[in-house]
Amino acid sequence: MPQAVHEKKDHDPLSSLRILLAQDLKRVDQIIDHNLDSSAPLIPTVGRHLIYAGGKRLRPLLTVASYRLFNQGGDGAVGLAAAVEFIHTATLLHDDVVDESKLRRGLLTANDIWGNQPSVLVGDFLFARSFQLMVESNNADVLKILANAAACISEGEILQLSLCHNLDVNVEDCLRVIEAKTATLFAAACQVGALMAHQTSYASALRDYGQNLGMAFQIVDDILDYCAHANHLGKDVGDDFKEGKITLPVILAYPHCQQEEKEFFERTLIDHHQTPSDFSRALEILHKRQGFTKAYDRAAAYSEKARQALESLPGHPIKDLLDGLIDYSLHRGC
Amino acid sequence: MPQAVHEKKDHDPLSSLRILLAQDLKRVDQIIDHNLDSSAPLIPTVGRHLIYAGGKRLRPLLTVASYRLFNQGGDGAVGLAAAVEFIHTATLLHDDVVDESKLRRGLLTANDIWGNQPSVLVGDFLFARSFQLMVESNNADVLKILANAAACISEGEILQLSLCHNLDVNVEDCLRVIEAKTATLFAAACQVGALMAHQTSYASALRDYGQNLGMAFQIVDDILDYCAHANHLGKDVGDDFKEGKITLPVILAYPHCQQEEKEFFERTLIDHHQTPSDFSRALEILHKRQGFTKAYDRAAAYSEKARQALESLPGHPIKDLLDGLIDYSLHRGC
Repeated sequence: MPQAVHEKKDHDPLSSLRILLAQDLKRVDQIIDHNLDSSAPLIPTVGRHLIYAGGKRLRPLLTVASYRLFNQGGDGAVGLAAAVEFIHTATLLHDDVVDESKLRRGLLTANDIWGNQPSVLVGDFLFARSFQLMVESNNADVLKILANAAACISEGEILQLSLCHNLDVNVEDCLRVIEAKTATLFAAACQVGALMAHQTSYASALRDYGQNLGMAFQIVDDILDYCAHANHLGKDVGDDFKEGKITLPVILAYPHCQQEEKEFFERTLIDHHQTPSDFSRALEILHKRQGFTKAYDRAAAYSEKARQALESLPGHPIKDLLDGLIDYSLHRGC
Repeated sequence: MPQAVHEKKDHDPLSSLRILLAQDLKRVDQIIDHNLDSSAPLIPTVGRHLIYAGGKRLRPLLTVASYRLFNQGGDGAVGLAAAVEFIHTATLLHDDVVDESKLRRGLLTANDIWGNQPSVLVGDFLFARSFQLMVESNNADVLKILANAAACISEGEILQLSLCHNLDVNVEDCLRVIEAKTATLFAAACQVGALMAHQTSYASALRDYGQNLGMAFQIVDDILDYCAHANHLGKDVGDDFKEGKITLPVILAYPHCQQEEKEFFERTLIDHHQTPSDFSRALEILHKRQGFTKAYDRAAAYSEKARQALESLPGHPIKDLLDGLIDYSLHRGC
């Protein structure tokens, strides 16, 4: 471990965590790979396409980190880490069907290559596999937390559908969607890691850490969708704008827009009439009306809460890296 | 109970089971209804559309019957019965997206009314809810069986995708799809009912009953798709043919077809070139080449196995009705 801490100077905290937990992550990948095996060849084909397309494995990393933070031996959390990644991958597959996305992690989406049918069904298979992996944990609390998280994610996706075409959506509703879609799984990923290490009392601190990290992470993601280089996120910049998705930067800027600017967003995001120059016009308005700054301030506030949640935890190199991950999530890209 | 047994003369076994287990089924409906509640209004709207559109509740009925068969008090199986119905409903919602079906249970499909997005996402929500309900059972065996069944169903659906456009598919592959898509959930529905009644030794007999009943049920369903009146099944007759689905009657008839008949199926089912008169021509060929008779014989063989599986169970009015259900499934429609 000291070696990895030394390397902290050369690596970002995400890479350092990866190095420190390399053995666990390798085991997680083996479990993922093994559980994609099927007599239906489309399952490994479609599953591996997405899972091995450079996914960050951030959620399973949180699970194994929350387990190893307590100096646990054994590999009690790797199965759950794989389950968490399967839930995440299943939602990505279904998201891409719902959003009709063409690019994900720098590759064509599964639905673009194979059509909607395999994406829907392989997503279902991954969901079911994640439950099989959870059941193996033999831990009733863990099962409850992850089953609740799975329900919460789809509820968030559905809520987003009904908010998606409304510019007057209030900030709280938008944050509820972010919480349900992203933060809940981050929170669960951390919490179940601690529970598998029998650290019931620290599990809620790690849940709060994950919850707030997830909020900050997703808000920054929504900002980056407007400004990251395509290669950095591995998806098309401006996807949200092109799909008429009304994300936090727009919601925070909209009330401060002039009539002409409001009409611009109504035409482009609600009526879906867009011309090639509209995206840079959107960027200009969002900068001018402080959509990005205000969204970023929100992300920073969640980051602060994530940091506070970590305070009660015992000192450990992994704790420092989890702390570093907060700033890293906030400042990546752009 | 004696009343219900008397009524057996006037009712088919399915209706008699419904009467006998009316209280349980009412409770199952309450649990279903309660679990469709959500802050996302699309969930109860889409969920209830399908769940209350005259579904037979056959699977939850099997669960509560397999529980009450052992004179259990309490309501230990109703939550699982609701979970089983949620799994089934989720697969129907996703099936209709995959098949682009227009009609289900006599109503427009959810995807036809609301589009693919809510169907995919509400299906996911129902899947997740089913796992939440299972977790409440606090029974590791039950969790394992139902999680396995859910994985098996989606695996079967995916397998069907790859077989769907091939007339030379062998009978065993087709039966594997039927087993995975339908029989496994019938088997699990029965098995978990018995396990909740702490009848480990009888649980496998009930699993075998459900498995073979499910096989017979689905084979008859595939036959009825060619010959039932639309109102009877609540879906368009000839759906499978129109969608180019290659079901057991076709697979059993095809090797005995003359060249011209084979070319007919290649044009209609593989190349999807169909004229309005093609469906009656398909019926004619399938009758002539004994596709229906042979499929029916297979269903009858599974029915016999279902009957044998029941033999080891203790005498009980519910046992008689489960036995009656076998013939009822075999002889419904047409």
